[in-house]
Amino acid sequence: MTEFVYICTPKTLNITYCIMSVKSNLQVARAAYQPKLPKALKGAVKAVEGAATQSVGNQEEIKALFPNTYGMPVVRFADGGSADSQSFNVGIILSGGQAPGGHNVISGLYDGVKAINPANKLYGFLMGPGGLVDHKYIEFDDALIDEYRNTGGFDIIGSGRTKLEETEQFEKGIEILRELGIKALVIIGGDDSNTNACVLAEYYASKNYGVQVIGCPKTIDGDLKNSQIETSFGFDTACKTYSELIGNIERDCNSARKYWHFIKLMGRSASHIALECALQTQPNICLISEEVEAKKQSLDDIVNYIAEIVARRAANGNNFGTVLIPEGLIEFIPAIKKLIAELNDTLATEEAASVAREEVIDYVKAHLSADNLATFNSLPDGVARQLALDRDPHGNVQVSLIETEKLLSSMVAKRLSEMKAEGKYCGKFSAQHHFFGYEGRCAAPSNFDADYCYSLGYNASRLIACGKTGYMSVISNTTAPAEEWIAGGVPITMMMNLEKRNGKMKPVIRKALVELEGEPFKFFAAHRDSWAINTEYVYPGAIQYWGPTEVCDQTTKTLQLEHIK
Amino acid sequence: MTEFVYICTPKTLNITYCIMSVKSNLQVARAAYQPKLPKALKGAVKAVEGAATQSVGNQEEIKALFPNTYGMPVVRFADGGSADSQSFNVGIILSGGQAPGGHNVISGLYDGVKAINPANKLYGFLMGPGGLVDHKYIEFDDALIDEYRNTGGFDIIGSGRTKLEETEQFEKGIEILRELGIKALVIIGGDDSNTNACVLAEYYASKNYGVQVIGCPKTIDGDLKNSQIETSFGFDTACKTYSELIGNIERDCNSARKYWHFIKLMGRSASHIALECALQTQPNICLISEEVEAKKQSLDDIVNYIAEIVARRAANGNNFGTVLIPEGLIEFIPAIKKLIAELNDTLATEEAASVAREEVIDYVKAHLSADNLATFNSLPDGVARQLALDRDPHGNVQVSLIETEKLLSSMVAKRLSEMKAEGKYCGKFSAQHHFFGYEGRCAAPSNFDADYCYSLGYNASRLIACGKTGYMSVISNTTAPAEEWIAGGVPITMMMNLEKRNGKMKPVIRKALVELEGEPFKFFAAHRDSWAINTEYVYPGAIQYWGPTEVCDQTTKTLQLEHIK
Repeated sequence: MTEFVYICTPKTLNITYCIMSVKSNLQVARAAYQPKLPKALKGAVKAVEGAATQSVGNQEEIKALFPNTYGMPVVRFADGGSADSQSFNVGIILSGGQAPGGHNVISGLYDGVKAINPANKLYGFLMGPGGLVDHKYIEFDDALIDEYRNTGGFDIIGSGRTKLEETEQFEKGIEILRELGIKALVIIGGDDSNTNACVLAEYYASKNYGVQVIGCPKTIDGDLKNSQIETSFGFDTACKTYSELIGNIERDCNSARKYWHFIKLMGRSASHIALECALQTQPNICLISEEVEAKKQSLDDIVNYIAEIVARRAANGNNFGTVLIPEGLIEFIPAIKKLIAELNDTLATEEAASVAREEVIDYVKAHLSADNLATFNSLPDGVARQLALDRDPHGNVQVSLIETEKLLSSMVAKRLSEMKAEGKYCGKFSAQHHFFGYEGRCAAPSNFDADYCYSLGYNASRLIACGKTGYMSVISNTTAPAEEWIAGGVPITMMMNLEKRNGKMKPVIRKALVELEGEPFKFFAAHRDSWAINTEYVYPGAIQYWGPTEVCDQTTKTLQLEHIK
Repeated sequence: MTEFVYICTPKTLNITYCIMSVKSNLQVARAAYQPKLPKALKGAVKAVEGAATQSVGNQEEIKALFPNTYGMPVVRFADGGSADSQSFNVGIILSGGQAPGGHNVISGLYDGVKAINPANKLYGFLMGPGGLVDHKYIEFDDALIDEYRNTGGFDIIGSGRTKLEETEQFEKGIEILRELGIKALVIIGGDDSNTNACVLAEYYASKNYGVQVIGCPKTIDGDLKNSQIETSFGFDTACKTYSELIGNIERDCNSARKYWHFIKLMGRSASHIALECALQTQPNICLISEEVEAKKQSLDDIVNYIAEIVARRAANGNNFGTVLIPEGLIEFIPAIKKLIAELNDTLATEEAASVAREEVIDYVKAHLSADNLATFNSLPDGVARQLALDRDPHGNVQVSLIETEKLLSSMVAKRLSEMKAEGKYCGKFSAQHHFFGYEGRCAAPSNFDADYCYSLGYNASRLIACGKTGYMSVISNTTAPAEEWIAGGVPITMMMNLEKRNGKMKPVIRKALVELEGEPFKFFAAHRDSWAINTEYVYPGAIQYWGPTEVCDQTTKTLQLEHIK
């Protein structure tokens, strides 16, 4: 582990850290793994530039907001350039939730920066973007980097959720960047963090501060992808870890033959993780939030869908099964979405704030519109209470706290007892519940994520060397062997459009939800009826780092299907 | 997957099963693994017999109960016997909860039986001991066995919890055993199932039915071990799977630095799984039920212990940590144990049964003794309600349903707020909860479990060949390479004593709890204070089947420590 000991004076900061004394055998063996790099990054590179680019939407507005970083070309690296030995320092920040491979982005960047000139330094800002603003950092050296190669977690420097959005933060940042002689800052984050990276790049460019900013696509949720970015890092490892567990549960389910397992999976709004896990494990049921919304399904529709499958399996003597539920489901059910919106408004008033806790439910019921009141009344007590009573500091309903897996299984149980009374179901229904998220965010990266992240970091050093700012480090052709991967950079503005945030139109990177016309969903949709009734479980097992290449180097099913043309 | 399709007539049973059509790459690659066998089992063997044995307790009574199977010698196989080609058929039963490696016991037995004579047949009784009584079975062939080599789960023939205890069941069993020409029955199970195997062996011996019965030590809980049995199969894989997840959570915990993770672990009464996982991952806190009982700790003592560590870590700026909780904890707290006993009695009366559900709490409070009432009132509402209201069909409190991880974290939160008011704590406490059990019971067996189980099964065929009954298949010296493992058999009566079950004294295999004087606990106890305050997490990572031998062939820490002399 790393313990940061800060001794802060206004101008200096000394950090000591102790090296892990006890490691698992896997940690020790895995430290020696040399991640694979694309051929184009192995020696001296030359940057091949494409034509000027445009944003995916709102071109005029985005151009006006980013006069210095708009319209730049896509860059692709090819081998054969002339080696130089530029001297510069670089800073790096981990932003937001953990994702497997973050340490390899750092080690790739470190190796890349040192390969250009061994005197170059890499600094890490501590506990996320806040470290830049508060001037908390460490300098990496060989010993520290070697300690973290191919490991999971973000613990090497920690991460944080401070948003870099204000001029004041940018100005605090430039102080320390100048002090450390940093020519470029690499920000590892999701869509929001990369949007902010671009805003920062634009600001420093507009001020001629001479500091470049490069983003890196991170998130286990898989929702940072587009025509340029094939996948965000960490998605591969997290999905493989969850699929290992789901497969183990399916095998238990098929052996004991007496439980229905309801498994909720992290992933925020998007259902990419649930879909990928379904493709890997072939469960009896997997809900996809984006489909629920598109088909305007109600909670009852979903409950009926599950109960029907339970009944059909019971008719075959199979009183067991597995159901995958994406974390964001509840917000995608149109009726619930509407209810939550009105609840947020209703509860945000001063009048509501003065209502005693035990009277809030009655207050809510008295103020909701008829439609939403009906929805509210249809919910199990516990969930209704949770929606009305548990609010975050901004007064909003805390949707993520709702135990959707328990909500659905209890509603299915109720529906089944009605069906039994109607003679439409004869079986036993007993449920187990699981929620997987923290189990996979910090797993040691798969070979794919180890290679991909190392390449993203190494590639960032090349983007810095050729003076780019406002670019994201991008590695593509990722279903081919790493040797053949394509390395380069894409202007972040190219991925932007305007969206409403807190009532104002903001430039943001468009979030990728599951596309119902995409190959991964289509494959799932074509097979799910068979998976529902027949027991066609697949058991992916634990992530392997050694062994046959088809076992230890395969990418996600999502990537494979998206690359079918 | 396997689908059993029964077409039952009184005397015949046809089973069809379909071969899995879709497999993961790991499943395919792993099917080719050839489990390692002890040297002594590789060719023709000879049985070396020791002196007569005695039971661990109540010798006279056990001898009287088992006149035909008591006192037999321990058997050890050595190479150099003469090969024969006995002709016989064997039946096998999976009993109780799943454990990784069950399929390898079957494949080892199959290979062993066929190696003796290719005409020998192996039958599997379906869905546990009930299959013997109900005459539901399949015959194994190469195709089916090959489909399941080195896989997790018990789905090849299913398992069940029917107890073989009644003469009527034994007689129903002998009918089908005779019909199929079965000379020996192998029962794979935990302490109860092996006790029953011995009772069955004794019965068939007393009747001169000519059917041998051999047991196999299975359970992820690790509580079936003694001076003869070093470990039960499945414990290794299950603990490694849970430790993978705990390590991942620790890494997340140490990266985000904002949550305390409360993790409950399966394992029934014994804390072997929690202890092994602690040895593998070095969490901040691990509770051991056996110690709680020995020290007569109250729930408050435990809560104070945790809260103290939370406060000490907070004082160092570490508002995060991990707590491991054994599933059986609550029953080992003397005050709660007493309360549960009185609750069971109080609620078992006819009067209690007639009390309306909403009045049960008041009824309970009016009837509990002063001591137990005080304990009851000290519990959080939800838990008190669960204890009073959720009973199994026998009227007993369902202890396993109590979410101990949530109970403890909510009580710790309360204690911390008191400490804050007293100026003894300044920190933030935010908890996440997990329960791991089903995630590991059916994992694909580690190399150790794959080898160990295959050897147990193969070894059983040798015990059968030399005419043994009432023996358990035993493989020892398991911390050495498989080549050097010792194979043989131990009379089950040797492990027995009398214990009270449902008010009557019964012969049972003594259950192994965590020994507070044993090396695994002593190692833990010597290090836990340091693990509590310093962050010394170890990240075991996913089970590896290929790679360096120290990564993919290591045994549990428990076994390693128990073998230190």
